[in-house]
Amino acid sequence: MKIYDNPAREDWDALLARPGKADDAAIRQSVAAIMDDVRQRGDVALKELELKFDKVGLENIQVSEKEIDTAETLLEEDLKEAIRNAKDNIYKFHAAEIPSLAKVETAEEVVCWQKAVAIEKVGLYVPGGTAPLFSTVLMLAVPAQIAGCSEVVLCTPPAADGSIHPAILYAAKISGVHKIFKVGGAQAIAAMACGTATIPKVYKIFGPGNPYVTMAKQLASLQDVAIDMPAGPSEVAIIADSNAKAEVAAADMLSQAEHGTTSQSVLFTTSKEFALEVAGEADRQCAMSSRAQYISKSLDNSKIFILPDLDTAMDMCNAYAPEHLIISCDGYRDLAEKVINAGSVFLGYNTPESAGDYASGTNHTLPTSGFARMYSGVNLDSYIKKITFQEISRKGLEKLAKTITVLAENELLTAHKNAVEIRLKN
Amino acid sequence: MKIYDNPAREDWDALLARPGKADDAAIRQSVAAIMDDVRQRGDVALKELELKFDKVGLENIQVSEKEIDTAETLLEEDLKEAIRNAKDNIYKFHAAEIPSLAKVETAEEVVCWQKAVAIEKVGLYVPGGTAPLFSTVLMLAVPAQIAGCSEVVLCTPPAADGSIHPAILYAAKISGVHKIFKVGGAQAIAAMACGTATIPKVYKIFGPGNPYVTMAKQLASLQDVAIDMPAGPSEVAIIADSNAKAEVAAADMLSQAEHGTTSQSVLFTTSKEFALEVAGEADRQCAMSSRAQYISKSLDNSKIFILPDLDTAMDMCNAYAPEHLIISCDGYRDLAEKVINAGSVFLGYNTPESAGDYASGTNHTLPTSGFARMYSGVNLDSYIKKITFQEISRKGLEKLAKTITVLAENELLTAHKNAVEIRLKN
Repeated sequence: MKIYDNPAREDWDALLARPGKADDAAIRQSVAAIMDDVRQRGDVALKELELKFDKVGLENIQVSEKEIDTAETLLEEDLKEAIRNAKDNIYKFHAAEIPSLAKVETAEEVVCWQKAVAIEKVGLYVPGGTAPLFSTVLMLAVPAQIAGCSEVVLCTPPAADGSIHPAILYAAKISGVHKIFKVGGAQAIAAMACGTATIPKVYKIFGPGNPYVTMAKQLASLQDVAIDMPAGPSEVAIIADSNAKAEVAAADMLSQAEHGTTSQSVLFTTSKEFALEVAGEADRQCAMSSRAQYISKSLDNSKIFILPDLDTAMDMCNAYAPEHLIISCDGYRDLAEKVINAGSVFLGYNTPESAGDYASGTNHTLPTSGFARMYSGVNLDSYIKKITFQEISRKGLEKLAKTITVLAENELLTAHKNAVEIRLKN
Repeated sequence: MKIYDNPAREDWDALLARPGKADDAAIRQSVAAIMDDVRQRGDVALKELELKFDKVGLENIQVSEKEIDTAETLLEEDLKEAIRNAKDNIYKFHAAEIPSLAKVETAEEVVCWQKAVAIEKVGLYVPGGTAPLFSTVLMLAVPAQIAGCSEVVLCTPPAADGSIHPAILYAAKISGVHKIFKVGGAQAIAAMACGTATIPKVYKIFGPGNPYVTMAKQLASLQDVAIDMPAGPSEVAIIADSNAKAEVAAADMLSQAEHGTTSQSVLFTTSKEFALEVAGEADRQCAMSSRAQYISKSLDNSKIFILPDLDTAMDMCNAYAPEHLIISCDGYRDLAEKVINAGSVFLGYNTPESAGDYASGTNHTLPTSGFARMYSGVNLDSYIKKITFQEISRKGLEKLAKTITVLAENELLTAHKNAVEIRLKN
């Protein structure tokens, strides 16, 4: 972990650059080939690709009702209860995001409004890997359930025996997912983007994934599918002064580092002593961890910046635009007002990032790699369209007519003008 | 204009397919070359490209304060007044979209909320062409002004004499645009995506354009820039029964057709007689128009569908997912409740699309080509990020701890668990 003492502002961008990313051109080429294959050969291609990449020979791509019902019986009660508790909090938070869209009389008898309407068909991707990411199922499916999407499909890679972890099936069931498919990687994205005999084509695809999955989502977005956002390696920034506890800050950095070797943890602090203490604690905790090999590698990507005051720390943090931001210092509420670029913010001494990762209720699908400058994390908006409506009375049109016709005339759009005049003539 | 009488549902998709689109591969190649050139040579490349494509030798790319101030003196008072009136209505409607984001106590002493924060740097693109599209300036700049974006830049192609139409400059000035540049086409998008010595790099790019501009936006979105939405040719759908006036419906179809030869107008009606009458009226009005050559070509893309009842008409219209939808029939309010896929909807007999194009207050930057299935039109949300915050008390963390740690343990993320436990231990 490198420590930088009061770096010059002109060096911030370079210091805050994300660790180098994978070779896009090579990934693009192999993903494009997979997508073409799935588009042309559908389910046959999917089964071949699952055999190739996930080492599994599938008879049925779709998870059966029976598999879903059985899943519930295979799980410990405390895990099911934790999943339900998390779901309830996520539901409560996202349900509060339902927009209240009032009618606006913008001019006399000219009434306009927005109406939120669910995207009908959405596809959720839940990556595989060493652990079953049932929390991601909740994060992606619960807002779809609240929005009222009429077709919610989920793809996730199966284990070598062709099974899906029961906790994933359980989370999907209680969150209203309609269909679950045993497909992973770029081929899963391709299937949801193009549709196959088994997997329905969707209008928008959500969820994290490795660089192949992300590339597949981006290529799909060039066609006729929307995506939640581009996803990169996970990251956390911490702003802390010497009132924070070094062992806690170190634990927060490690909880990010354990996601994978490309994860990044960054600490902005006003105290040199605290910086050194955190670095020492991080090494100590890493050595004690069962995942030390992983964590030590991603701690190599991690940085500590010592800055003259908290406002400067906030400035540098806004320049970094972190996915997660933990603010652990006295006066954290005032500092929180100055956040411009971040995905999700954790305030005070008792709010670890893992609370938001699982159970506080906020979404954990968040913009990485600086995308917090222009993207929100997944939220209810991500599953709806806001359609605008307008209704104008005869009198309203009479009063608005001059504005419309003068503008249309000056844009040389005479038929636009005529559409007003022909109504008034009648 | 083709008329289809009660087409079978299985044929809807084919009948509703948009007119063929331009050759993507060729466009992509030339746009990628332009973007590379701008990235490498900045302003020098921009000036060369403006000479090549817009036939103009520019000394200064940026519009001067003096040019902006002079613009105001060159415009007729009635045009300025119409621009101000339209701006006021657009402002009023979009200001009502400011989200009210309440704090939610998702569990005991676990408090979460969203906060809307403006995207700092946005780039607006206003296409050139035969007419000055000052209405697009208002539509893109007013919500940026309301959101409070700190840097709003606008690019638009100059005329051959190096000038920008004064109505564009005036609209930009009263809508709070900070900097205006004389650059068009793919090179304008490239400049805002990468930044040059003169043009700042932005985080999100908005605005319509030809297939080159759209491709440039899409390629930029694969890098580190967001875009409003992919844009295609403009289109209108009309649902009307025999209570509507055929000459009005025909005028509405023509007002779409005059946008260009790739525009499409589609009528869904329950009356064969009305269908024939509209087709005749459209031909008659087209022959009388000064833009007959244009309009007759795009009327070739246009279609009339006769359907057994209004609900079926609405179903087929939802399958089409039009950018604009005019509902002109008795009971239009009930029918409006059934709209699932549309950009903006115009209700009743006195609400022409041109009202929304200019002055009702709704945005005219809308999803085309079926993208209304998953995209909203430009609205205040497009200029903000919703950052989530959470604050948990000691007691709240104690109560939530079990849920978090059980989930973390089952996802094999022990450092996530530790970040909770180390806090509670203290």
